[in-house]
Amino acid sequence: QSSLTLFGVADTAVSHYSVKSAFYNNTLALPSASALAFTEVTRSQTALSSGANSSSRVGFRGTEDLGGGLAAGFWLESGFTQDSGATALTSFSRRSTVSLSGGFGELRLGRDYVPTYWNESVFDPMGAVGVGENLIKSISGNIATARGPGSPIAANDNAIRASNSVGYFLPRNLGGFYGQVMYALPENVKHSYLSDSSQRGRYYGGRFGYANGPLDVAVAYGQSTAADTLVISEAGVVAGTRLSEKLRTINLGASYDFGVLKLMGELSQVKDKAETTTAPLSAGRLTFTDNDEYNGAMIGMTLPVGAGLLKASYARVKFKNDLGSAAPSLLALDRDASVNKLALGYVHNLSKRTALYATVARARIKNGQNNPAIMAVGLGGPAFLSTGSGVAGLAPRSATGYDFGLRHAF
Amino acid sequence: QSSLTLFGVADTAVSHYSVKSAFYNNTLALPSASALAFTEVTRSQTALSSGANSSSRVGFRGTEDLGGGLAAGFWLESGFTQDSGATALTSFSRRSTVSLSGGFGELRLGRDYVPTYWNESVFDPMGAVGVGENLIKSISGNIATARGPGSPIAANDNAIRASNSVGYFLPRNLGGFYGQVMYALPENVKHSYLSDSSQRGRYYGGRFGYANGPLDVAVAYGQSTAADTLVISEAGVVAGTRLSEKLRTINLGASYDFGVLKLMGELSQVKDKAETTTAPLSAGRLTFTDNDEYNGAMIGMTLPVGAGLLKASYARVKFKNDLGSAAPSLLALDRDASVNKLALGYVHNLSKRTALYATVARARIKNGQNNPAIMAVGLGGPAFLSTGSGVAGLAPRSATGYDFGLRHAF
Amino acid sequence: QSSLTLFGVADTAVSHYSVKSAFYNNTLALPSASALAFTEVTRSQTALSSGANSSSRVGFRGTEDLGGGLAAGFWLESGFTQDSGATALTSFSRRSTVSLSGGFGELRLGRDYVPTYWNESVFDPMGAVGVGENLIKSISGNIATARGPGSPIAANDNAIRASNSVGYFLPRNLGGFYGQVMYALPENVKHSYLSDSSQRGRYYGGRFGYANGPLDVAVAYGQSTAADTLVISEAGVVAGTRLSEKLRTINLGASYDFGVLKLMGELSQVKDKAETTTAPLSAGRLTFTDNDEYNGAMIGMTLPVGAGLLKASYARVKFKNDLGSAAPSLLALDRDASVNKLALGYVHNLSKRTALYATVARARIKNGQNNPAIMAVGLGGPAFLSTGSGVAGLAPRSATGYDFGLRHAF
Repeated sequence: QSSLTLFGVADTAVSHYSVKSAFYNNTLALPSASALAFTEVTRSQTALSSGANSSSRVGFRGTEDLGGGLAAGFWLESGFTQDSGATALTSFSRRSTVSLSGGFGELRLGRDYVPTYWNESVFDPMGAVGVGENLIKSISGNIATARGPGSPIAANDNAIRASNSVGYFLPRNLGGFYGQVMYALPENVKHSYLSDSSQRGRYYGGRFGYANGPLDVAVAYGQSTAADTLVISEAGVVAGTRLSEKLRTINLGASYDFGVLKLMGELSQVKDKAETTTAPLSAGRLTFTDNDEYNGAMIGMTLPVGAGLLKASYARVKFKNDLGSAAPSLLALDRDASVNKLALGYVHNLSKRTALYATVARARIKNGQNNPAIMAVGLGGPAFLSTGSGVAGLAPRSATGYDFGLRHAF
Repeated sequence: QSSLTLFGVADTAVSHYSVKSAFYNNTLALPSASALAFTEVTRSQTALSSGANSSSRVGFRGTEDLGGGLAAGFWLESGFTQDSGATALTSFSRRSTVSLSGGFGELRLGRDYVPTYWNESVFDPMGAVGVGENLIKSISGNIATARGPGSPIAANDNAIRASNSVGYFLPRNLGGFYGQVMYALPENVKHSYLSDSSQRGRYYGGRFGYANGPLDVAVAYGQSTAADTLVISEAGVVAGTRLSEKLRTINLGASYDFGVLKLMGELSQVKDKAETTTAPLSAGRLTFTDNDEYNGAMIGMTLPVGAGLLKASYARVKFKNDLGSAAPSLLALDRDASVNKLALGYVHNLSKRTALYATVARARIKNGQNNPAIMAVGLGGPAFLSTGSGVAGLAPRSATGYDFGLRHAF
Repeated sequence: QSSLTLFGVADTAVSHYSVKSAFYNNTLALPSASALAFTEVTRSQTALSSGANSSSRVGFRGTEDLGGGLAAGFWLESGFTQDSGATALTSFSRRSTVSLSGGFGELRLGRDYVPTYWNESVFDPMGAVGVGENLIKSISGNIATARGPGSPIAANDNAIRASNSVGYFLPRNLGGFYGQVMYALPENVKHSYLSDSSQRGRYYGGRFGYANGPLDVAVAYGQSTAADTLVISEAGVVAGTRLSEKLRTINLGASYDFGVLKLMGELSQVKDKAETTTAPLSAGRLTFTDNDEYNGAMIGMTLPVGAGLLKASYARVKFKNDLGSAAPSLLALDRDASVNKLALGYVHNLSKRTALYATVARARIKNGQNNPAIMAVGLGGPAFLSTGSGVAGLAPRSATGYDFGLRHAF
């Protein structure tokens, strides 16, 4: 009953990406002639891509039966770039866990998916990869890259996975109920002459669901500390500005299998709560708050057709900009933005392990100039051209892409 | 009929390398006394080396029978440094492919050997590794390093392998005829306000051969775009100098097995065609061309002796310098150079997988000062001392080396 | 009789580290009020750690029976960070060897443990890992980091392992006697115009022991060339200062299994011999010597308790500072330092491969200000705060830590 498995996925596609930026003008003046010469700019790329249907990976995993219903297990999984071979088993950043499981459930230690990620993947017909990936997941990743705690491993740390985590999973025999909680240690050093230590990098969250027959529904909540600066020097003197920022994610996903087709969807909200306190902290300090919100909804379906599977999804994410507690300027009165995305795909299964697939997707961005760092959703290719800092210039407008590939699991 | 294999080679040798530079004087003046104090400089090194008989590597590969004669396959292979362990499965830069094969042949996607490489390896008694490696391969690698498109993965990209490639192989049952073609995507971004996109990094080529009984012969042609700068700024203004450079390789290899010994050889030509156009491109622009040539020939043999195999090869590569379309100076009248190399080896097989081996090699360089970046063929150890920019100084003259090692395949 | 094995260890612990620095004053003056404000500073950290009971690793190894008692073998082993997955099969820096073995013993080539390391690991109840690791090993590692030859692979190169090594092991059937010798090539380039080449990076050493019944005893000696600068320029002119530094390690370890408990211990001495010769070398040159010594002793025991194993060790290392051949200042009269460490552990085996474990350890440093680079023994967490360059300030005083983890071998 013990096992040791080498496993992986080799997935490559010929992909095409195209991103279009369009001219915008938030001023009262007419645009200059030279600005109008570029009312639209398109960047495009044709490339061999990796993992557009299932992320390319190599891993080792195993379990050991310890008797008495107890088992030990490990799972080490590395992504790699199938198209170029540039990375191989460079890091186990996809998953690096060791577990103890039994009647009590499972205790899992190391680097693993965060609970708040699962609804973005499980209830996405596209599996949250390739040009058609769940728009909510794309934007959550962009938030983590732009605002999150960062990491030498993955820029979107704590959006998809967390290192240094302790996770607990409910046992499987709860009549369809399932659940998990996770705490990821921030691992920052505490100094005896400071009253506190930075919590930057900390994540905690949980996910609970119910799967029975055709129905699967789950809700998740998580909080990631993106910034938590302690600006007291070793001599006890206050210096600099203190920044505190937390990302709070709540999402709900569900699917229902009608047999002929399966419907699925997700609702998600990410709150980005930032607080800046100017120095000196002790007296006369000023605190500014800035609480942004990202509200998303996605609906999708999969439809078996012979050896194939048709897939479709439509999603929309709206950015609600808090102008902050400092007095807003006239130009900043409406700094919101939104994105919607339509994706269509077909997977032709040659076997359980091997498939040919095609996906097309199109994203459309409204008022992207108000938040190009996060709302500029490309599909994997070149970056949008963004100019003008929200006043007048070129802003992300739309992105289209396709993947046509071969996926082989081993 | 499906399979999953972990495989590799662990190969280490005690190697010695020695490179000698000698004084040259292209001026009419006598050399100074201090210059004559160093008429010859030798650098040498004794080292444990990796992969002198067969490149040290670890890989995963597998095939899946899809029925109806169709099969899927993958091949992920990483080199590693056996002597120091400094690199392990750091990149699948040796090969990272996923394939679909059947009666139609094989479609292969990812990073793979370029067609033009095979004749340099298959028809080299030394297998294009270690101190005795095919001189033509060494110089092709040097050209790619000095002039080629470059890559974060391997300096000699497109000389041995190409990333982002689509390859097609003829089926195997063609009465001895075999063949392959490859196209590697340059993956450069196209901008809507430019009429063209850079083709830098692109490779296309093919190889066709015939193997029947004792005879094997093959011809290959390939073209790699080493440089293709587009110097128009985003505002549409021409700026800078446009450089276009292409490396065209044609080679022919053959072997004939007389039973008592096997004869083999290769002819090769690499043309380096560069074109520089000064700015502004629109009017009054000047275009300079510079078309260099590298012509090589190699002859070798292998001779089975009991459990062992004696191997020998002799090769010569001549650099033919085009002085370019700008007026040449008097000193530049003859800027050609040449290298020849003799290699002798013995492999003592302890089993099919394990062998002890010894190789000695000597390369001799003529007029190395005219092209030290490419014609200075060391054998794996220290770099030559090169001074004087072709006028007077020290130039690469000769290199000697040996490997004495143990190769174990698994 | 041939084999190919994928193996590894996944080991993660919740660990806590705390390091305390305390105020010292080697001057005749009273400390200032601001200095006294920080008479003690503690830094602490709670973290998920990797490999606190057995280093987390993934490896490939195999043997091939060549007939006639001869066998070939290879062993490739990479460490990885179980807690974060940040490194995977990034380097085979734990071991990268290919071997030929038979009645004559074993010849082993590549990167391997140095003979002088084994006594620090085999006779340590804690296996030289985690917060309780052998103090002698910690300090040998610190010496190699601060004074050793350095390496892009591992800062403590030649203290634990050496690259580019040739090793020989005695055959196993010598009535309990065992032994090994190793030579690691420095691989520095020799220039024809210099009479010598640098030996920096060279290691040679050996270990011999006797294991029979309850007794195991072994002695080892090794020398590592930490520095060997050749400061003659290519034009033959002497420039700069020549530094030569060698680390000589001798140690003796023994264990005796009384059945109810097993006693073990180690004695060790590392001599750091440095010689600095000022330029010009030819005439009127000055040579300064500086010969430091590190003397260590460790005693430990393991006690089986049901499915568990209790472990304890106590160690002490004394730094004996040679003030060098230059005239010492009054303040430098006694620049010695010492560390002692107590470690207690318990391993609860769930199977042969899987265990829960707990370790606590405490190190106490005396006069750490005299050699903070080497004597400041933390236990894996934050660095000590060190100020004042030995005159007056904060110096490392004590460190405490614990690991509470899960180890799973596969």
